[in-house]
Amino acid sequence: MERFFYPRSVAVIGVSANPVNLAKGIVRNMREAGYQGKIYPVGPRGGTVYGLPILSHVRDLPEPADVAAILTPARFVPQVVEDCGKMGITRVVVESGGFSELGEQGKALEKEIAQLIDRYNIRLIGPNGLGVINMEIGLCLPFSQMAPIPRKGSISIISQSGGVGMHLAAWMTKEGLGLNKFVSLGNKLNVAENEILAYLMGDPGTEAVYLYLEGLHDGRELLHVARRAPKPVYVQIPNVGEETSAIAFSHTASLASDERVVEAACRQAGIIRVKSQADFLVAAKLTGQPLVKGDNLVVLSRSGGEAVIAAYACRQWGFKLPSLSPDLADFIHESSRSKIIKPTNPVDLGDIFDFSVYSRVFADLCQDPEVHAVLVNYGPVYDPEREEARRMARLMIEDAQKYQKPLAICVTATLEEEEFFRDELGFPVFHFPGQAVRALAYSRTLANRSQPVVGARSPWLSRDKIAALLADQPASGFLPMTASLSLITHLGIPVAGWQTATTSQEALTAAGDLGYPVCLKLAAPSLVHKTEVGGVILGLYNPEDVSAAFDKLAEVAGKTLPRGEAWEAVIMPQVEGGEEVIIGAHRDATFGPVIAFGAGGIWTEILEDVALRVAPIDNEEAWRLVLDTKIGQILQGARGRPAVDLTSLCRALAGLSQLMISFPQIQEVDLNPVRVFPGGKGILALDARIRVG
Amino acid sequence: MERFFYPRSVAVIGVSANPVNLAKGIVRNMREAGYQGKIYPVGPRGGTVYGLPILSHVRDLPEPADVAAILTPARFVPQVVEDCGKMGITRVVVESGGFSELGEQGKALEKEIAQLIDRYNIRLIGPNGLGVINMEIGLCLPFSQMAPIPRKGSISIISQSGGVGMHLAAWMTKEGLGLNKFVSLGNKLNVAENEILAYLMGDPGTEAVYLYLEGLHDGRELLHVARRAPKPVYVQIPNVGEETSAIAFSHTASLASDERVVEAACRQAGIIRVKSQADFLVAAKLTGQPLVKGDNLVVLSRSGGEAVIAAYACRQWGFKLPSLSPDLADFIHESSRSKIIKPTNPVDLGDIFDFSVYSRVFADLCQDPEVHAVLVNYGPVYDPEREEARRMARLMIEDAQKYQKPLAICVTATLEEEEFFRDELGFPVFHFPGQAVRALAYSRTLANRSQPVVGARSPWLSRDKIAALLADQPASGFLPMTASLSLITHLGIPVAGWQTATTSQEALTAAGDLGYPVCLKLAAPSLVHKTEVGGVILGLYNPEDVSAAFDKLAEVAGKTLPRGEAWEAVIMPQVEGGEEVIIGAHRDATFGPVIAFGAGGIWTEILEDVALRVAPIDNEEAWRLVLDTKIGQILQGARGRPAVDLTSLCRALAGLSQLMISFPQIQEVDLNPVRVFPGGKGILALDARIRVG
Repeated sequence: MERFFYPRSVAVIGVSANPVNLAKGIVRNMREAGYQGKIYPVGPRGGTVYGLPILSHVRDLPEPADVAAILTPARFVPQVVEDCGKMGITRVVVESGGFSELGEQGKALEKEIAQLIDRYNIRLIGPNGLGVINMEIGLCLPFSQMAPIPRKGSISIISQSGGVGMHLAAWMTKEGLGLNKFVSLGNKLNVAENEILAYLMGDPGTEAVYLYLEGLHDGRELLHVARRAPKPVYVQIPNVGEETSAIAFSHTASLASDERVVEAACRQAGIIRVKSQADFLVAAKLTGQPLVKGDNLVVLSRSGGEAVIAAYACRQWGFKLPSLSPDLADFIHESSRSKIIKPTNPVDLGDIFDFSVYSRVFADLCQDPEVHAVLVNYGPVYDPEREEARRMARLMIEDAQKYQKPLAICVTATLEEEEFFRDELGFPVFHFPGQAVRALAYSRTLANRSQPVVGARSPWLSRDKIAALLADQPASGFLPMTASLSLITHLGIPVAGWQTATTSQEALTAAGDLGYPVCLKLAAPSLVHKTEVGGVILGLYNPEDVSAAFDKLAEVAGKTLPRGEAWEAVIMPQVEGGEEVIIGAHRDATFGPVIAFGAGGIWTEILEDVALRVAPIDNEEAWRLVLDTKIGQILQGARGRPAVDLTSLCRALAGLSQLMISFPQIQEVDLNPVRVFPGGKGILALDARIRVG
Repeated sequence: MERFFYPRSVAVIGVSANPVNLAKGIVRNMREAGYQGKIYPVGPRGGTVYGLPILSHVRDLPEPADVAAILTPARFVPQVVEDCGKMGITRVVVESGGFSELGEQGKALEKEIAQLIDRYNIRLIGPNGLGVINMEIGLCLPFSQMAPIPRKGSISIISQSGGVGMHLAAWMTKEGLGLNKFVSLGNKLNVAENEILAYLMGDPGTEAVYLYLEGLHDGRELLHVARRAPKPVYVQIPNVGEETSAIAFSHTASLASDERVVEAACRQAGIIRVKSQADFLVAAKLTGQPLVKGDNLVVLSRSGGEAVIAAYACRQWGFKLPSLSPDLADFIHESSRSKIIKPTNPVDLGDIFDFSVYSRVFADLCQDPEVHAVLVNYGPVYDPEREEARRMARLMIEDAQKYQKPLAICVTATLEEEEFFRDELGFPVFHFPGQAVRALAYSRTLANRSQPVVGARSPWLSRDKIAALLADQPASGFLPMTASLSLITHLGIPVAGWQTATTSQEALTAAGDLGYPVCLKLAAPSLVHKTEVGGVILGLYNPEDVSAAFDKLAEVAGKTLPRGEAWEAVIMPQVEGGEEVIIGAHRDATFGPVIAFGAGGIWTEILEDVALRVAPIDNEEAWRLVLDTKIGQILQGARGRPAVDLTSLCRALAGLSQLMISFPQIQEVDLNPVRVFPGGKGILALDARIRVG
């Protein structure tokens, strides 16, 4: 990666003197951004561009350029890549479009290029992207006009869409946020996001990373990289549903992800998933500051109204507004003109015109370990006091840095004061208090990242028994109900006692053994949705009920099963009491095995009270998974209710996680319902469905 | 109001030539804004300001000015107001602070002023506010510097905080939104928001209104005015909790409102409650356009990535992206360069360089009644095509107006293109697709406003019986349980059969009459929270249970009731089945009677699944109230479950609404639980608590 970002020379291929030539935009941008290395424009028609001669062929280069940027029609790209390979160029950026995003013909071209880079040992970024920027050295490979040239700074961008990345970079500049490195991934033929992200994690110039992704190259690896990230990582992943899938596919040949899995995975990895560019611009304004390590916020404000708005935002985002220390409160009170009101938090400083008071108050707050961040509403500032106010602002920023106290400044003065902060202090400010509090909340989320789960193992899982059981079953499709129930037992999850019967008499005997009331379920290899066809009969209180139910199942089997398929009835005691939950697992296309937990019964679908985690999870992570749901809070014994046996529940979830990791052939597990009982009475799975493949 | 907004002359009182004099800022702003009427600066020290002579006293005015703006120290204000009164000035704006927001002394000053304006028949805006702006005539009374002077337009602001209002006005200008009128209310001694809002509703220059309120003068009246509003009304009401109450009180002497009531009231009145200034700036960009009357959105985009982001925002905000008509799809396909991909919605036009195609596509969409709004991602635009792209934009805006189709434009080109839209076309644009879709969603909310409930009456309410019952009870405090249960019956709400007992034997007889199982509840005048003290005993299946329970209640009564207080046991059959809900009512300090409905049982507190309505509500509004909750959706028979008797439920809610309107002495009603049964089997209240006062 290093050579992509720090080339000493760049060949720009596809340049001509034609006014509508796009490639020469690359040369223009490089020069405007102040690139000091060598630039070699290349194009068959020769001529000059921005004072540089255009070489007519790659072989005419005086040296193998460190990087070649290619912007020719797609059909010529393979030849150019080969030319580069022959010249010994090993880093290539392809900005041309017209590849896999346009269908079969383009896909073939990509395949051809893939073979070439393999042969010549080339690393390639693109195609169908805008290339690479490194503001540290003025490297600026996008061809499209950059107005303005990005502000230099410490935030790096990895964007699958060049347009989105460039638009954001322009807004960052406007909002006072500086760019360090930028990569537009395009179709990700060779280099994808994870490799770049890993590089940026170790890059001294980068303090935070924003990723825009339409498809995930390898979600699991992304988690792996981000989990160890010492810097804030923000991702925007909009392609998560039917609304976006068609357009995203035609744009960057990307497949949609599952929004709930993306959401869960980001939380687990400590990645902030932003839902819009505007969200990112808010969050990023605290880049480079220490993280907000608690809920206590002090708001200093000269505008009473903006103080109220800030306090409301604290309510929205769960910040507390602790009282000031008595000494500080007295000092503010004594310094105020009217000396009437004791200061509360937010502190309304509207009545104090001596800015040295503000600085002293702020320095005090900086040294108070119980204050986790300070929000300053800067303004209104009247003309005569402007210089003093600005001096105070400078002091505050210095103190915040000195004492490592997170500081958010919201400019509520005239808009030109925003420019002062942005351009003279290089300190990005917020436009409204709500945005500032939101950014502090993002920072707090980053501070609260949980430690990654490493090598979680469930001692309750009988690996050999499960392997033996699976060996006896077909390699794909749903397991028979009885096999599913057995497998769950081997996982250490208790299952309600059950027996099978193929005759009415056997069913009666089983019911007698298990104890009334019982329920009967139809089981057959081809039957997946037994409830829907009437194959589950509950509430059987006596032998007559059981006989009738067995006959009914026989009737259902006759109607719904393929002629001649063997079936049996599964008899279970009808379990009363406890709370109903659902436990499940499936394999996500990009993130791999995922564990789900949620409320059962009537609330399941209406509430969508389900939380997810990417496996592996240990008991502790399972606990967090459970508490992410409303039902989890109820189970925990919220507000006076007796707590249920969460330990057994978490053990079951961790065991399921282990199962999915250990047995990749298991595609899907659905335990619905599972009853969770108060006290130490454990859990009981009442049904299980498992798909292998 | 008219004279406040359209004065032909303005006296500015408190002016001096001193460099730090604040009042002269008013004169400066008036001149910069181009006010053409007469300006009379007044101040005891005389001199000149901005070329105008400073009159030394109000009585020196050559005429009674239409408006007097006062900015002197608070203690002088009463005298100045009296001077104005004597001169025959009847419209006064007081910008000075130092009144009720600073405590008792200031309150006394306000009282003095109140008497004076009464005597001289003066209308007064303020004190402690920034006064009035009317951009139509350059009236600009705020004293603080306005950089920039607001853009002229059609949005009016009513703000309790001058600072918040001015800051927003500055941002509106930056965002391309024009200001029409502005009032900073301050302490609302005389003129409050409702009167101004009513005026603006009939003001031809105003197309939308934003209100910033820290306290509500009269929430019920606000609803009344806004409900009939022919224009969009946006309110920001941050002072809704303990976080904000202290600072808001010290800022504008305002009391906090109940957030849930505010939220419900705004919905009922068709007011958009924005939670931040940034929200408003997004929503307001569609001002003057027709409302979005459905869910079907078409996105035209030149950037594939921004199209994906727009589609994601549609997912977030519940918009549909219908397919294009076959003709239109063919036309786009034929016009594309690569001719490979069939256009989906979002339409990626990145491959089309002929902008007349865009105009033709847009005109087509404008004429399609199934398309409820169009979002255009404008850009990227390359230098050579800029002029043609701009021509297209102009055409689109014209067509949108001609065909009355809501159009949101998001500029994804270089930022200078935003300036083109703002400054040359006067068309506010969005920075990111998510903001555009959010604004369209706000517009759709405005289009879906429900009609106000007028004179809803419940025929099931026995007014006379209730009046008689209340006459027999103490005038304040909680009614005895038996009286509460009777009152509820008179309301037409069925209550589970019940009897009272003062001896164990009576209890046994009652239980025998009602049928087992039963429950026993302790009832006594002073007992409010009977469950908490163990005064409710459930699940009594036989006479022994009942005897024991009665003895237990006697014990509880002995322990918890004041010595000698009479008590009785209420015996009720234990009702099984149905879903548990809660019905309630209370009086909000600003909005008056409020009706609540929510889930009962274990989910009540965890889910906070409660919805509110300001009374009166009719059956139809009650239906909407019920469906606002999750439990309501379950009761309705969501996803296969049998529906319950919603008609009885809604009748009960409407009846309760009628009770609160008819009997102002009833402060609080709490029916918890109420069981709702499937089919036509009605509802049954199992307990009732009523407070009068």
